[in-house]
Amino acid sequence: MRAVDLIRRKRDSGELTREEIEELISAYTRGDVPDYQMSAWLMAVVLCGMSRPEIAALTEAMLHSGSVLDFSDLRGRKVDKHSTGGVGDKTSLVIAPIVAAGGLKVPMISGRGLGHSGGTLDKLESIPGFNVNLSLTDFRRVLDACGCALIGQTAEIAPADKKIYALRDVTGTVESPALICASIMSKKLAEGIDALVLDVKTGSGAFMKKIDDAANLAELLVETGKRMGKKVVALLTDMNQPLGRKAGNAMEVAESIEVLSGEGPADLSDLCQELAAWMFFLGERVKTVEEGKKLSADLIASGKARQKFREIVGLQGGDVGVIDDPQRLARASQTLDVTSRADGFIAATQCEQLGTACVVLGGGREKKEDAIDPAVGIEFHKRIGDAVTRGEPLCTLHYNAATRLDEARRLVETAYKIEPEKPKTIPPLIYRVIGA
Amino acid sequence: MRAVDLIRRKRDSGELTREEIEELISAYTRGDVPDYQMSAWLMAVVLCGMSRPEIAALTEAMLHSGSVLDFSDLRGRKVDKHSTGGVGDKTSLVIAPIVAAGGLKVPMISGRGLGHSGGTLDKLESIPGFNVNLSLTDFRRVLDACGCALIGQTAEIAPADKKIYALRDVTGTVESPALICASIMSKKLAEGIDALVLDVKTGSGAFMKKIDDAANLAELLVETGKRMGKKVVALLTDMNQPLGRKAGNAMEVAESIEVLSGEGPADLSDLCQELAAWMFFLGERVKTVEEGKKLSADLIASGKARQKFREIVGLQGGDVGVIDDPQRLARASQTLDVTSRADGFIAATQCEQLGTACVVLGGGREKKEDAIDPAVGIEFHKRIGDAVTRGEPLCTLHYNAATRLDEARRLVETAYKIEPEKPKTIPPLIYRVIGA
Repeated sequence: MRAVDLIRRKRDSGELTREEIEELISAYTRGDVPDYQMSAWLMAVVLCGMSRPEIAALTEAMLHSGSVLDFSDLRGRKVDKHSTGGVGDKTSLVIAPIVAAGGLKVPMISGRGLGHSGGTLDKLESIPGFNVNLSLTDFRRVLDACGCALIGQTAEIAPADKKIYALRDVTGTVESPALICASIMSKKLAEGIDALVLDVKTGSGAFMKKIDDAANLAELLVETGKRMGKKVVALLTDMNQPLGRKAGNAMEVAESIEVLSGEGPADLSDLCQELAAWMFFLGERVKTVEEGKKLSADLIASGKARQKFREIVGLQGGDVGVIDDPQRLARASQTLDVTSRADGFIAATQCEQLGTACVVLGGGREKKEDAIDPAVGIEFHKRIGDAVTRGEPLCTLHYNAATRLDEARRLVETAYKIEPEKPKTIPPLIYRVIGA
Repeated sequence: MRAVDLIRRKRDSGELTREEIEELISAYTRGDVPDYQMSAWLMAVVLCGMSRPEIAALTEAMLHSGSVLDFSDLRGRKVDKHSTGGVGDKTSLVIAPIVAAGGLKVPMISGRGLGHSGGTLDKLESIPGFNVNLSLTDFRRVLDACGCALIGQTAEIAPADKKIYALRDVTGTVESPALICASIMSKKLAEGIDALVLDVKTGSGAFMKKIDDAANLAELLVETGKRMGKKVVALLTDMNQPLGRKAGNAMEVAESIEVLSGEGPADLSDLCQELAAWMFFLGERVKTVEEGKKLSADLIASGKARQKFREIVGLQGGDVGVIDDPQRLARASQTLDVTSRADGFIAATQCEQLGTACVVLGGGREKKEDAIDPAVGIEFHKRIGDAVTRGEPLCTLHYNAATRLDEARRLVETAYKIEPEKPKTIPPLIYRVIGA
């Protein structure tokens, strides 16, 4: 194999064989193909696309670049959920305990915040002491002990993805359904799971703004997972406004605990129960999705899901006191209300801007090496369709340093579209289920 | 400027400003933009193209990445010729002495063989002692002394092109009219010339197989040169069969001396005189191209062009004895005739294969570090339209090592298309002149 020939073939919209893709990825992972050839190939993939068999081959090559975990000796089916990311999307923190409380195993490998979107690892780390950097041995131990463990990608898991992802980030080659699919699925399939529920988000706060693009990606993910012998469905869900009422790491942990306690906002609670229901269904814990929803609701009402979260936090070194007293979480020293400039109704939000505002306050990273302030965030008081009067607060910014407060405020102020008439349609929580 | 933003813009078929292109190229040249970002950008350019202003900006940025020579203090207009390359294309060796003998200055910076095509530097180096690696000071001295100097690209000339060219070669990003244009023109404009004649080749032995692609490139080259204030024309010429009767470094030098002596094949002689005529015309040595052709013919007939070649060879350290006795050039020890398998007429040649056969015999490089055997080559006995009988020699291979003789013979045998009827059309030498 000459890498340049494979680059040229893809550039001319040709197809690569399974063997060629495997060799390219393994040569790149061991450093025999340099970054500059890989980035040219990645750009050719972004612009010329990949066939379904090519995507499957790429996913497998990336998956087998590292360890594939095997939990088959642990009792119970292994299921996971993956979201393509958005603003206020904290469902992992709620779902993982619910599903583990229901008797399935949830070996969840998550990521950090990316661009305007938050990340499960950053949220968990706002719980004092919580360790997301478990060794694979400890990962298995915690999973075995309580049915769930939540960690970050280790060096053993899909090293090809780690290397390619870092390269894509700096070479303008992120936005490719084929590459996104291979990246997600190689990591998730390495978890040794039987089933996977995907939450593919679309709208102004998602990476896929257009519903058709999101649906395409969802189909690709489902097909790729099924080719690899896994049970997979994708829920196409709305991200035209934040999920729940809070964005910001510690604030999202607090809100997750509310939902696990049977409280919290309806949209977040509904989506969590829906996703958990599909996990129960694919994990063969229930016969129907409806039954799964009932089970999820019961596990919340009985306090078992909340108790499971306490167990996980404890086993991963976190302060379990935060479950009963979320005040123990970091809190920002200052708040500022952003108010409406007009009477009317919320017609739409530029949701990515709301996420960016949270990053600007210090809740996310603009560069890899940036430190995160777990305390800061935004509380959202209004949702699309809500009436609002001039001077009424739209959101409250929670901040510590005022350095970039103006920038965050401007982002938030301009993110709300207020119109005199109530909007005719309000985005649904879930558009449809793909692969069921 | 963030390089990734410029990559993303080009990937989305957007346009970059002059300043952005300048900054990208200068940051890459000084090593602040890494290869892997440049190769992603280059691939985006190959697939999404560049606007005319972008191409002009890229050419200028590459030109100004190094020294731009200034020969304005030397008497006489400075003119040059550049060919996009082919098989048996030795016109530089003939034209440079003709035009210098006619009183213009020819500061010619040439390249080496690339792929199946030969290179002026490799041909010149088959003259014992000939030094193509002159310093810029010696380049000027020889140019001043005899009106012409023939060297390779130095470190001072367009270093951005040198770096980008090496990267393109290994990242499948050679085939872009925009990048080819910027590469050629940045080097040629650095020569401090007033006028440039381009020989853009098309056909089975050219890099641009299709005449429309070649015409597009020719227009791009001409427009870019004119934008920079130079007089430029492009001759769109045929490369569906080798130019002249010989390919191979020393053999091509011998054939060039034949033409300079008023002998040699008509196609080569005609094209050289036509190109020289355009150089005389653009260099304002003559009032019409016709007059330029007459001047070229006179300079050959009078022996002045041949005498000028002797001067150049002498000033660049070469053995001037080869001019009178081409037998002093390296000669292969063995020959093999490749004969026709049928009666009929030559209908077409797969000319790139003939060039590759020459490389296989050792006359060119397959890898950068390969050594060249100056003696080997191919003599072509038949041209398109010629009658041929079964068993009659089509070509003679001149070789030293028999190691890859079979491979070369197969390439040559299958390169000739022989049909029972005489072909209705025979490719013309020159299709048209662009930019006149």
